[in-house]
Amino acid sequence: MDICIVGASGHANYAISAIAKDENSKLAGIAAGTEGENLDGLLKRINNSGQKIEVFHDYKEMLDILNPDILVVNSYFNKQAEISIEALNRGMHVFVEKPIATNLEDLALVRDAYQKASKKKEIFLASMFGIRYTPWFMTAWKHVQQGKIGKVRLMNAQKSYRLGQRADFYKNRETYGGTIPWVASHAIDWLYWFAGEKFTSVYASHSKQYNSEHGDLEMTGMMHFNMENEIVAAVNVDYLRPGTALSHGDDRIRLAGTDGVVEVRDDKVYLINSDKEGMQELELEETKGIFTDFLEEVRGESPCLINAEDSFYITEVCLKARKSADENKLIVLE
Amino acid sequence: MDICIVGASGHANYAISAIAKDENSKLAGIAAGTEGENLDGLLKRINNSGQKIEVFHDYKEMLDILNPDILVVNSYFNKQAEISIEALNRGMHVFVEKPIATNLEDLALVRDAYQKASKKKEIFLASMFGIRYTPWFMTAWKHVQQGKIGKVRLMNAQKSYRLGQRADFYKNRETYGGTIPWVASHAIDWLYWFAGEKFTSVYASHSKQYNSEHGDLEMTGMMHFNMENEIVAAVNVDYLRPGTALSHGDDRIRLAGTDGVVEVRDDKVYLINSDKEGMQELELEETKGIFTDFLEEVRGESPCLINAEDSFYITEVCLKARKSADENKLIVLE
Repeated sequence: MDICIVGASGHANYAISAIAKDENSKLAGIAAGTEGENLDGLLKRINNSGQKIEVFHDYKEMLDILNPDILVVNSYFNKQAEISIEALNRGMHVFVEKPIATNLEDLALVRDAYQKASKKKEIFLASMFGIRYTPWFMTAWKHVQQGKIGKVRLMNAQKSYRLGQRADFYKNRETYGGTIPWVASHAIDWLYWFAGEKFTSVYASHSKQYNSEHGDLEMTGMMHFNMENEIVAAVNVDYLRPGTALSHGDDRIRLAGTDGVVEVRDDKVYLINSDKEGMQELELEETKGIFTDFLEEVRGESPCLINAEDSFYITEVCLKARKSADENKLIVLE
Repeated sequence: MDICIVGASGHANYAISAIAKDENSKLAGIAAGTEGENLDGLLKRINNSGQKIEVFHDYKEMLDILNPDILVVNSYFNKQAEISIEALNRGMHVFVEKPIATNLEDLALVRDAYQKASKKKEIFLASMFGIRYTPWFMTAWKHVQQGKIGKVRLMNAQKSYRLGQRADFYKNRETYGGTIPWVASHAIDWLYWFAGEKFTSVYASHSKQYNSEHGDLEMTGMMHFNMENEIVAAVNVDYLRPGTALSHGDDRIRLAGTDGVVEVRDDKVYLINSDKEGMQELELEETKGIFTDFLEEVRGESPCLINAEDSFYITEVCLKARKSADENKLIVLE
């Protein structure tokens, strides 16, 4: 299984670390996805992982020459769509950074390309919602699946990051896409994954105030989702985590169900239900990473937890949430 | 200082416990606020506190005879407005359960009565937002006041209760008013208190599904507030806390500011800012109770943290949040 990478701006490391441990796959080539995209950091990481990779100046030329089985799409966020389409048109499987597209028009084009390619052969595409595979989120999810909190009724999900100094492409809506699709998309994915229900509407807000000269970058965001069966959910996102915090991010989810409450916080999972008096901390599941799961699907071994349809759907919900925030209006989701 | 109580359905205990420790005030009389309101539990509590009280069958007759300085309004939630108006018309200070009114028309009548009464003498009114005075909320608030997190940008507040078996008047929107004004009102009050800014809009949802035969009672609610200066805030409320939880309620707030993050959770306060590496747990302030604060204002000693204008304002925001949820629409707040 040959794998190429385009770009160095996302979480390609999901793939790099999985391939390093996988005997039946190898990194073949890498190229920038757009002019000015610096590959140095990623090349160093690949080198440190003990792998070698061929560097190309033009990613299409790389695809012509190497014709990989899988393309990891990992460039500036506004470039993911066109690079994914290029790969799909060539019948390659696509492992793509979220958001798949930074606007609804581009998303529709990727969907079309995927459908067209799927008519010729079985094609797999997954967006990099890798946080699902952390032991804490996976453990919480499995308990919810097992009915440990009954029916999910209310959810709160959080993404909080340190800002630090971001690369220039974060400062421009055109290249960055916005904090809702870039950061909150994970939390939106969790809501859908945990509840197993579709969204029916979104109302969102965001603000770029106090962004320390980061241009268009929104520092805070709040999203209010209604879902099927009168499930309600909120996502709060911010870049306000102080530099003195001991970790980069503070990912959380709290789910209140008809028979219990489960929570992920500080990489731990807490449950209250009728099984036990008081709150219990759950033992964490061992998990495989997202790219290993994707590889197993491509090899026909087992289905990946994140499929193309869900990847497109979450991207669409994120872009509509951003639209709600931009236009300050309630948006109905179908 | 003579104090009477009308009704036995709210948190009159704030007053009863404060008066028990106060040499210059005494409980004078109590009466039901509406037919069928049972005083037994509250009378037992008064007795246990070592105080005596005269019981009346008609609260207006009680007011005629005892003419108290302060009336504690503590009846069915739809009765608080008319009882408050009766007291205000008689020039009495009013300590009233939240929400002050269960609809905007009644709220306007209380406001009018307060303004009319205030023209004749100085009148104090406060709504029972007593959770402000817990050591954990007060400690967090004082740190925010001291600038420990810079400017507040994003807030999440939570109220989660055990449902248990509620009295019949909870099962009827007419007498109960709704879970947003009854339970979430505290959290809405915190947002206003911590941010020190007005609300500019609300979008809310609630659901009575899975309410274990509690009629109209909403089991879950979610509110999305915009505030001045692009501050965003969410409140989640539920009655889904399992019976096995070790406490009745799970009150929380998290505030992300330009210079730090502060959180109240499990009756503790956590802060991350530049003062220290990592998260610190704050030492809790000693606090006086809400009714002691109210008594001190009535006596001219110091202003109460909760004044009439804020009590009316929060009630109005709560009722408009409920309206947003009932009608599924974004409501602009002035």
